[in-house]
Amino acid sequence: MSVYLDNAASTALVPEALAAMSDAWSRPGNPMSLHDAGRRARRLLEESREKIAGCIGARPSEVIFTGGGTEADNLALKGIYRARRADDERRRRLVISAVEHHAVLDPAQWLADHEDADLVILPVDRRGRVDPADLRNELAAHPGEVALVSVMWANNEVGTVQPIAELAALAREFDVPLHSDAVAAVGHLPVDYAASGLSAMSLAAHKFGGPQGIGALVLGRDVAAQPLVHGGGHERDLRSGTPDVAGAAGMAAALQVAVDCMDRNAAAADALRDRLLSALAGLDGTVVNSGPDGLPGVVHVSFDRCEGDSLLMLLDAQGVQCSTGSACTAGVASASHVLLAMGMDRAAARGSLRFSIGADNTADDIDAVAGALTQVIDRARAAGLTGVR
Amino acid sequence: MSVYLDNAASTALVPEALAAMSDAWSRPGNPMSLHDAGRRARRLLEESREKIAGCIGARPSEVIFTGGGTEADNLALKGIYRARRADDERRRRLVISAVEHHAVLDPAQWLADHEDADLVILPVDRRGRVDPADLRNELAAHPGEVALVSVMWANNEVGTVQPIAELAALAREFDVPLHSDAVAAVGHLPVDYAASGLSAMSLAAHKFGGPQGIGALVLGRDVAAQPLVHGGGHERDLRSGTPDVAGAAGMAAALQVAVDCMDRNAAAADALRDRLLSALAGLDGTVVNSGPDGLPGVVHVSFDRCEGDSLLMLLDAQGVQCSTGSACTAGVASASHVLLAMGMDRAAARGSLRFSIGADNTADDIDAVAGALTQVIDRARAAGLTGVR
Repeated sequence: MSVYLDNAASTALVPEALAAMSDAWSRPGNPMSLHDAGRRARRLLEESREKIAGCIGARPSEVIFTGGGTEADNLALKGIYRARRADDERRRRLVISAVEHHAVLDPAQWLADHEDADLVILPVDRRGRVDPADLRNELAAHPGEVALVSVMWANNEVGTVQPIAELAALAREFDVPLHSDAVAAVGHLPVDYAASGLSAMSLAAHKFGGPQGIGALVLGRDVAAQPLVHGGGHERDLRSGTPDVAGAAGMAAALQVAVDCMDRNAAAADALRDRLLSALAGLDGTVVNSGPDGLPGVVHVSFDRCEGDSLLMLLDAQGVQCSTGSACTAGVASASHVLLAMGMDRAAARGSLRFSIGADNTADDIDAVAGALTQVIDRARAAGLTGVR
Repeated sequence: MSVYLDNAASTALVPEALAAMSDAWSRPGNPMSLHDAGRRARRLLEESREKIAGCIGARPSEVIFTGGGTEADNLALKGIYRARRADDERRRRLVISAVEHHAVLDPAQWLADHEDADLVILPVDRRGRVDPADLRNELAAHPGEVALVSVMWANNEVGTVQPIAELAALAREFDVPLHSDAVAAVGHLPVDYAASGLSAMSLAAHKFGGPQGIGALVLGRDVAAQPLVHGGGHERDLRSGTPDVAGAAGMAAALQVAVDCMDRNAAAADALRDRLLSALAGLDGTVVNSGPDGLPGVVHVSFDRCEGDSLLMLLDAQGVQCSTGSACTAGVASASHVLLAMGMDRAAARGSLRFSIGADNTADDIDAVAGALTQVIDRARAAGLTGVR
């Protein structure tokens, strides 16, 4: 038996994406070349950009292809911080939420450690939600000093959706750019860049059925940013390097499918989530940390007196694949900063698992997980009590 | 008719790479995940890294996957410069050759403009070759002040191969790291990282039959570098972001094929090159700028009283696809810095074309090019004389 419930870590490539990529490879070319093959590659690249833009309420010229979500976040954080500071030396405050992914946290910390940024962390409530009043207080208390605000669209661990439109309206009021890491949200929740009021937004193809190794930063034409990578001047001179035409085509095809099937997929994921929640309700000492209005299909649970890692390994031995949180910090034996920020104590945080349901999962998968959990949970607790991990 | 003679801009994906990628996609997973699917993805990523390392005389741990050659060059230039300078404030000199690709030139210029680097440009001879004596003079005149030297393995426009082993020996003698952009060379010439004495080396998959959007920086374990992209700490903490497992598998498969077939492909390319050179010899007012000991299959020619762009377009109309130089600067109406550095005058530089022969080309292709050239060259000259471009 093999049940994959870690779709938030990486999804399977959808057939439409594979077909689009195969088609691109049948007509090779460098999209910067001036001849027929180059122009055809360029046309496919631009059609992919248009399709992606159309799916997320952006203009094509706002879509900057990158090597993935982490690079998009880094380009936003460092690129906008550096440009804003170069424009006005006083803009040193960098405001992020306490539950950001490491792809935002780590460049922010880097800027604090190496480039004089004053890092300001917005707290979250017990569900992981930023209070817009906290952002207002920060912006009002430091007029002219905030370089950039970055708050994710939806949290990758617990699925909590942030009040992006409210935060964006505040940022606009104080004339400060707001970036959002929308990597977990795009393709799963309705995301409209123009309507959101954001200045910048990150996405990654492999979170919605596209290939790994490609993502995008959506960046308003009026938002200044310095590039991380210099060279031939590709992508509005913000990200040099031969564009990945097949990857862009695969990303566009996958996003189109995700958006077209969003309602159906979300309803199916919610039904499976409810089935899993029912099963969990029958188990002793479990607390569900994900809310009903979060990312579809994300179920985050704490198991009393368990180590998440032990539970993960025991479940894996039963063919059930899930995670203790972000795959990017897998293997790091420390409690999730997201859960700690939500006020969870360290032991409960370490005893947590994330199940993320995808379009390929079935009711049988959920029943298999429920059965496997019943079998392994006592063993995990016994292991925890004897200090074995 | 369609004859693709722009393989140096981007090659077609070889079937072995497509098969490896399709296989990777049939078993999805995030290589950082701890469960079975994650471990399988990780195993494939590491096997790909080992295969690539084996093809270029590196250790697997020295191979850092990036989003392409340009990113690898930027990571080397900025990453090593910043680390060397952080270690010793006096190390501000950044030494590059005059014929580097923009992926090296532009980050170097950025460091000069924004991070106090003293940019030193090593001249080249009429063939585009750096004289090791010039590097010795520079290193001897500025002990303790050179942060990094970067000299490409082979030039992407004219194919000239640099004396890398000699340059590397000098760099070692003065205890300065030498990076080489080997993007045009890997898969086409024997490249042995360990034997070369280099500290760092860049490669890009789509130049040897692999997919666009992935490359690598080969970086010695003892060479300090600062990352451009921060996050989950992937790739020795030098390049965060979910690794592109399928891309890595495709890159490895393509490189294996390129290395296995290198002698055969080079011999075939040389034969077709000679055929093209014979045809060119029959045309008035042509000068061949590529040498017999350069990159296999690269033929660079200047056409007297012609604009390269006009010639390119006229050839394209006949179904022949080539370039005026680097695809990354295509459409930029200025003479190539490579040709100017080789001492060519501006008019001759602008009247040049690069034909780059690949494994799929045939004698018929060359004959077709020769025929098309005969037809279009007079028209291009007439257009040039009347000022039409």
